[in-house]
Amino acid sequence: MHAALPSVGVIGLGAMGLGIAKTLRSNGFLVHVCDVRAEAAAAFASEGGVACATPAALAAACTVVVSVVVNAAQNEAVLYGADGVAGAAQPGSTYVMCSTVDPNWSIAQETRLNAMGLHYVDAPISGGAAKAASGQMTMMTSAKPQAYAAADAVLNAMAGKVYRLGDQAGAGSKVKIINQLLAGVHIAVAAEAMALGLREGVDAAALYEVITHSAGNSWMFENRMAHVLAADYTPLSAVDIFVKDLGLVLDTARASKFPLPLAATAHQMFMQASTAGYGREDDSAVIKIFPGITLPSAQEATP
Amino acid sequence: MHAALPSVGVIGLGAMGLGIAKTLRSNGFLVHVCDVRAEAAAAFASEGGVACATPAALAAACTVVVSVVVNAAQNEAVLYGADGVAGAAQPGSTYVMCSTVDPNWSIAQETRLNAMGLHYVDAPISGGAAKAASGQMTMMTSAKPQAYAAADAVLNAMAGKVYRLGDQAGAGSKVKIINQLLAGVHIAVAAEAMALGLREGVDAAALYEVITHSAGNSWMFENRMAHVLAADYTPLSAVDIFVKDLGLVLDTARASKFPLPLAATAHQMFMQASTAGYGREDDSAVIKIFPGITLPSAQEATP
Repeated sequence: MHAALPSVGVIGLGAMGLGIAKTLRSNGFLVHVCDVRAEAAAAFASEGGVACATPAALAAACTVVVSVVVNAAQNEAVLYGADGVAGAAQPGSTYVMCSTVDPNWSIAQETRLNAMGLHYVDAPISGGAAKAASGQMTMMTSAKPQAYAAADAVLNAMAGKVYRLGDQAGAGSKVKIINQLLAGVHIAVAAEAMALGLREGVDAAALYEVITHSAGNSWMFENRMAHVLAADYTPLSAVDIFVKDLGLVLDTARASKFPLPLAATAHQMFMQASTAGYGREDDSAVIKIFPGITLPSAQEATP
Repeated sequence: MHAALPSVGVIGLGAMGLGIAKTLRSNGFLVHVCDVRAEAAAAFASEGGVACATPAALAAACTVVVSVVVNAAQNEAVLYGADGVAGAAQPGSTYVMCSTVDPNWSIAQETRLNAMGLHYVDAPISGGAAKAASGQMTMMTSAKPQAYAAADAVLNAMAGKVYRLGDQAGAGSKVKIINQLLAGVHIAVAAEAMALGLREGVDAAALYEVITHSAGNSWMFENRMAHVLAADYTPLSAVDIFVKDLGLVLDTARASKFPLPLAATAHQMFMQASTAGYGREDDSAVIKIFPGITLPSAQEATP
């Protein structure tokens, strides 16, 4: 542990949070952790670090608290619930909010926490569990200068790339949900295009080869249609994540009455997939909403 | 001119056809050309090659005829109209059809020309005018083995990459329109995402920087949103091209009653842009359908 490093805590040890906690530990921080599953915190601490029973106990010991929970509601419970961070944090501490949320909600938390003498960093993350654990994930952040000053050492140690997008909360979450808008529509249209190819009798592997070398390519087409070709719907990111995230996008735009025709259509497709029973499968399973096609099978994929 | 090379003709000297004719000439072919603008053919021939007054005159002199006209209707005029190719072609000649068309139409032409003793290659092209002129464009082809045998030397000389996708007409055009489905939706959703960012007060250049380094990226977002940031709507490919191409995609799917929710939505967006007066602008001008935002201006782009 480096004497000049701030004391840091990570709340939420899911795939991303656990990776972040490990990255911070390997960068020399004494990392406090807390999770609703006490055994997850204990397992982390057994290799170094401190398991805390509640967010309040963690906040009492740390000047920078990194929240990697699922959504706004869980953040509210962590902050303001019984044994929450806000009531126990040391004055001048900083809350780093890494969840994908409605930007207007994030803006409101900055105001609320500032009024309590606490700093706030709007800091959604991107890149997946493997990059979180290797310190290579991306953060889309915005915060007041004092908040950055307090949290910079932690932010720089957490991620390979920290985008600084503005001097108050909001811009980080806005860019994050715009990325999710694109990602969600790209997955849904990749499925639509592959489904049309199957309907028309085009060889799926040949179609994948041509598209990934043409102007019709996207990061998501290349990544997710490989899952379809392999008939592997193990959830790296699930259909229900895009039911949630495209919902956040639409909520945000609705607040200013702004039309999003493609995001709205893709959201309907993910909801159709979820209700049809594929909510916990990989998001590429949105292709299963298309009738009248035969998807590649696992038998074909593993000769 | 190499003695073993087939005599080749190019019909349609637009941006793509002229580039193809030049590429074939620089690869040693004696290239016959024909265009409804006689001066375009004469200008090409003044630097080498033979200008022909009609498709029939060209077909009488060439065993491989490459058609680079705009659509199926122009191909029908070139083939079956007065002074058309079909009535004048030497037996065993090959028609290489490079337009983006309804695959079912392309399949029908193979049948019709085969019955007249002519070969047919379904051969849509991709990559833009610069790549056509440098021999680096991509071709998405399918044809019967005899047609490939007759045209291979020409195909290989025309393009940097020739995908061979099946042993009869149809697969080439199917893969091409699926690429256009993806390209069109990606342009429209790039515009939708950038418009939301502008509506929400996000810095457009920062948004572009983050997205092009994130999982929300697509080939089209990266290429076309650079036009929006520069406020440069000079048409490299026009809004009306996607009114046409997404229309072909929807026509093809409708023939087998197959739903394409995102392609249908994007098609409506391009039609809205066209009717609003932006049909001949760059396809990125689809962003102009979004109300309540201020797009980057040319003044900002050139300080």
